[in-house]
Amino acid sequence: MIANNTNIKFMKEALKEAQKAASKNEVPIGAVVVFKGKIIGRGHNQSINTNDPCAHAEIMALRQAAKKLFNYRLTDVDLYVTIEPCAMCAGAMVWARIRNLYYGTRDPKAGASGSVFNIVNNKKLNHRIFVHRGILEKECRKSIQDFFKKKRKK
Amino acid sequence: MIANNTNIKFMKEALKEAQKAASKNEVPIGAVVVFKGKIIGRGHNQSINTNDPCAHAEIMALRQAAKKLFNYRLTDVDLYVTIEPCAMCAGAMVWARIRNLYYGTRDPKAGASGSVFNIVNNKKLNHRIFVHRGILEKECRKSIQDFFKKKRKK
Repeated sequence: MIANNTNIKFMKEALKEAQKAASKNEVPIGAVVVFKGKIIGRGHNQSINTNDPCAHAEIMALRQAAKKLFNYRLTDVDLYVTIEPCAMCAGAMVWARIRNLYYGTRDPKAGASGSVFNIVNNKKLNHRIFVHRGILEKECRKSIQDFFKKKRKK
Repeated sequence: MIANNTNIKFMKEALKEAQKAASKNEVPIGAVVVFKGKIIGRGHNQSINTNDPCAHAEIMALRQAAKKLFNYRLTDVDLYVTIEPCAMCAGAMVWARIRNLYYGTRDPKAGASGSVFNIVNNKKLNHRIFVHRGILEKECRKSIQDFFKKKRKK
């Protein structure tokens, strides 16, 4: 999609989160949750450091946002994430009933917004999410590629 | 499958967890995580009361177990849950790399172990789980049906 300034601003914040993950030697994925033009949840991948298989960027950001709104349902809420969400995170977004999902680059190995599964937009489930792909795609792809390049060198 | 005494014992514990959810007016789903014959994680659905879209029985139980083993990877670990897991929970089980999933009754509306998706046993993902369906099936089905019957009466 053609990203506007708002999209770019929030994806840059998601990229900052991804950077935090990289600095902890976690796969660099970052997410922010936006409500009425403001960030109400931030998250970065930290499964290894927290011993938590569920500690993906999107889950962290969604949980923080729900706590802030005192509601597990995040109506009229948008989520930005640097990489296409996995099945777990896509499933969480459907339960939370978020409105828009903006993501940077595809994940052909585990993506659940069209790549391996399509969970965010499935007629059988009771909620569907508008998906906008390709926000700062190059930057998001580079962020994860750089991380794995460094890892391989080591 | 034909359940043995061990399977029945642990599914009864999962049903106790489901009962805890019902008593809080949450959809009664319960789960336990088992390692070397011992329960190392318990969970019941509590999304509404905790304002957390991710607070499903399985997620709660997996997170507790991972904290206990100091590892987000739950190798040689089994999970018992009263109802077929959703996409979020099935996805979490794959990340956690659990060995066996035992569940009570199917969820035709959102189940991700064959009903709507098959996430726990998908060749494209990097881990597959052995699935055993129908442990205390009648009891598990009744537990959820009773809850919704009561709700409709009110």
